[in-house]
Amino acid sequence: MRLSQYFLPLLKETPKEAQIASHRLMLRAGMIQQSSAGIYSWLPLGKKVLDKIEEIVREEQNRAGALEILMPTIQPAELWQESGRYDDYGAEMLRIRDRHDRDMLYGPTNEEQITDIFRSHLRSYKALPLNMYHIQWKFRDEVRPRFGIMRGREFLMKDAYSFDLDADKARVAYNKMFVSYLKTFARMGLTAIPMEADTGPIGGDMSHEFIILAETGESGVYFHKEWLNTDLITDIDYDQDLQPVVDKFTSLYARADEKHDPDNCPISAADLMVLRGIEIGHIFYFGEKYSAAMGATVSGPDGKPVPVHMGSYGIGVSRLVGGIIEASHDDKGIIWPDSVAPFGVAVVNLKPGDAVCEAAAGDLYEKLMKAGLDPLLDDRDERPGAKLASMDLIGIPWQIVVGPRGMDNGVVEVKHRKSGETVEISPESALNKVLANDIA
Amino acid sequence: MRLSQYFLPLLKETPKEAQIASHRLMLRAGMIQQSSAGIYSWLPLGKKVLDKIEEIVREEQNRAGALEILMPTIQPAELWQESGRYDDYGAEMLRIRDRHDRDMLYGPTNEEQITDIFRSHLRSYKALPLNMYHIQWKFRDEVRPRFGIMRGREFLMKDAYSFDLDADKARVAYNKMFVSYLKTFARMGLTAIPMEADTGPIGGDMSHEFIILAETGESGVYFHKEWLNTDLITDIDYDQDLQPVVDKFTSLYARADEKHDPDNCPISAADLMVLRGIEIGHIFYFGEKYSAAMGATVSGPDGKPVPVHMGSYGIGVSRLVGGIIEASHDDKGIIWPDSVAPFGVAVVNLKPGDAVCEAAAGDLYEKLMKAGLDPLLDDRDERPGAKLASMDLIGIPWQIVVGPRGMDNGVVEVKHRKSGETVEISPESALNKVLANDIA
Repeated sequence: MRLSQYFLPLLKETPKEAQIASHRLMLRAGMIQQSSAGIYSWLPLGKKVLDKIEEIVREEQNRAGALEILMPTIQPAELWQESGRYDDYGAEMLRIRDRHDRDMLYGPTNEEQITDIFRSHLRSYKALPLNMYHIQWKFRDEVRPRFGIMRGREFLMKDAYSFDLDADKARVAYNKMFVSYLKTFARMGLTAIPMEADTGPIGGDMSHEFIILAETGESGVYFHKEWLNTDLITDIDYDQDLQPVVDKFTSLYARADEKHDPDNCPISAADLMVLRGIEIGHIFYFGEKYSAAMGATVSGPDGKPVPVHMGSYGIGVSRLVGGIIEASHDDKGIIWPDSVAPFGVAVVNLKPGDAVCEAAAGDLYEKLMKAGLDPLLDDRDERPGAKLASMDLIGIPWQIVVGPRGMDNGVVEVKHRKSGETVEISPESALNKVLANDIA
Repeated sequence: MRLSQYFLPLLKETPKEAQIASHRLMLRAGMIQQSSAGIYSWLPLGKKVLDKIEEIVREEQNRAGALEILMPTIQPAELWQESGRYDDYGAEMLRIRDRHDRDMLYGPTNEEQITDIFRSHLRSYKALPLNMYHIQWKFRDEVRPRFGIMRGREFLMKDAYSFDLDADKARVAYNKMFVSYLKTFARMGLTAIPMEADTGPIGGDMSHEFIILAETGESGVYFHKEWLNTDLITDIDYDQDLQPVVDKFTSLYARADEKHDPDNCPISAADLMVLRGIEIGHIFYFGEKYSAAMGATVSGPDGKPVPVHMGSYGIGVSRLVGGIIEASHDDKGIIWPDSVAPFGVAVVNLKPGDAVCEAAAGDLYEKLMKAGLDPLLDDRDERPGAKLASMDLIGIPWQIVVGPRGMDNGVVEVKHRKSGETVEISPESALNKVLANDIA
């Protein structure tokens, strides 16, 4: 993409309303624009990052055997009256009356809707196990939306729902999602710690929150220092017994502050770490809560009807954009992990109009595209300092800087955003270094 | 995908509420499920088709130089009060009051929102031309939703918005979208005819509807028979002058019934064709209508502020799923064009449990996956007749049928859904035939 043909409205000033780093940086980097309180438009750069995160979530859901569907945003009130949550949910539910005076709502979650789909079609245990997910916009009418897309009202969530014949089989489904979450967040460069959690309004017996560590996190987290040494098992066969894997991860102490009791902490102060964290996923096993209330039963092997055992599994897809920034930025701007960077590499032409620089920058840009990368070419008519600062602000992992002084010596500068490494090498070596992701 | 692990709730009965072919077939093929009037969930098979259509639309928008963004579904009423459309829009707009009693709405379209984004950031003509699009769910509270997803309330639309300095430049943007629409629909195997149209509530000076031909179409269309012979120019460079291309297409007579005057038809009865059609896209040039009302101005080359000239360009993405089925089905079911088929090929094992059939079907399935295809393996424990009928119902383009009698002779049956061609050949020849898309 040529930056001169892109829409990247960078802000020089730090917006006053933004209290946390991710909100400030997303506004300054031209990723989002507020539409109304807690509701945002995603501008081109923000949309690219959101898409990359969404695609990683989708791939790992598919690998874990979940089937993608798409439920609508607007749901009928009747479904929530059946489960009993219509009155319980309170003012956070955006309630709507349509032109025929029917009560509708903008879904904050989809347990009722998926249970309705299940009961409409499935009658036998032979169709189980089944896990279906969707990635859809949700709405929660927060009384005080803040922190940009981190605590917005309209937000993108992946929610999966598993259906099993009994509690033991439901545990297998739960473990698959547990492991897929570890893999999902690891691919985004995040350390995500699963913590035992309360089940809250979803209900149920077993629940883990996935918390990423970030200095600016919303809540305190207490965990065994071994968590920071844990090498994730990245090559896990989902057909194996996952209980030992889950046990391995859950055996290390980890609690959010509301569940941590200093007087009864099972590990020593020397092993205990206290940092701040951000919740980016939450999984629940709630058994028959919805299936019993809504009549989602299957006939078991003995022919008798039983309510299915369900779990639900959420990931805050839009929230992750902010979460990754909170976990990975410095005073110059965002530092994107490679897997979610909007562009993996930028070619910065410090002197557009200069024939030598134009040719060298254009050649690098073409070659990067031919190699299958999606490079950004900064061909704007701007001061060199402003250009370099903006590439750091928007967090491009590799930056190849083409300037007239370097070109006199046949070299360009290659900069790696995260390590800060810079080298002056020939354009060809620069290309090879970037293609090989060769960090010194 | 192994069908035994998929969620494909096929219906044997034709649902009574479905009046048109696409609605009947989408329900019978387990693609969608109604949530409430005019609002549907997309089940796994339907979601796959929707995604493929969306991706073709996205690719062609990107090729035409449009930038993808994502605007929220819920908009503040203030924006629509600025343009004057808040009161005009009537009962089709889903109006919402949030917990703080602020008036909001579920966007039926996004002219106001995109104009607000533009005016927040852009001040100079040097940023032009600019075209931004998004693919997002919209809501129109139809008084009588019907025809399944063809005339639903919550629907997926691609809408692009162009910004230019003057009417001539806006025409260039219009022409790019015009050409990209021809290419988009051609890739889906559709004959889409652009017809001069009224601009309706969007307003403006110039407008074309894109209509696909289908016997079950909602409205009559009158057009020169040459339309059916028109070979689409598929390799068009968007940087060239597109006016001759657009002129070539618009010079042939084509009018929807409300714009066709039999007494003043410029072509002879011998050249005139009358068929039925379905609107699947609509493009508008409306100049300064929104930019003037909402203060979206840029300074021109002379430094004076002028309202930008805008156009908007819609494609009914979810509607296209139904439109394609209307245009391509028979009494056995759907006939998917290759580009949007949920699975390009199915391997049907007529006798699961039979060692020879299992091995041959499994081997074909594995080899198709290794070749990069996304095959479906029908490994269900069902009657052979029911299996064959369901593959025709869900419209899989290529079907490889593995049965015990064929295997005795070392052959499988390869069936091409559209042509009806069937041949008995060796499994290896079957594989090669499908990979080569070799229709006799």
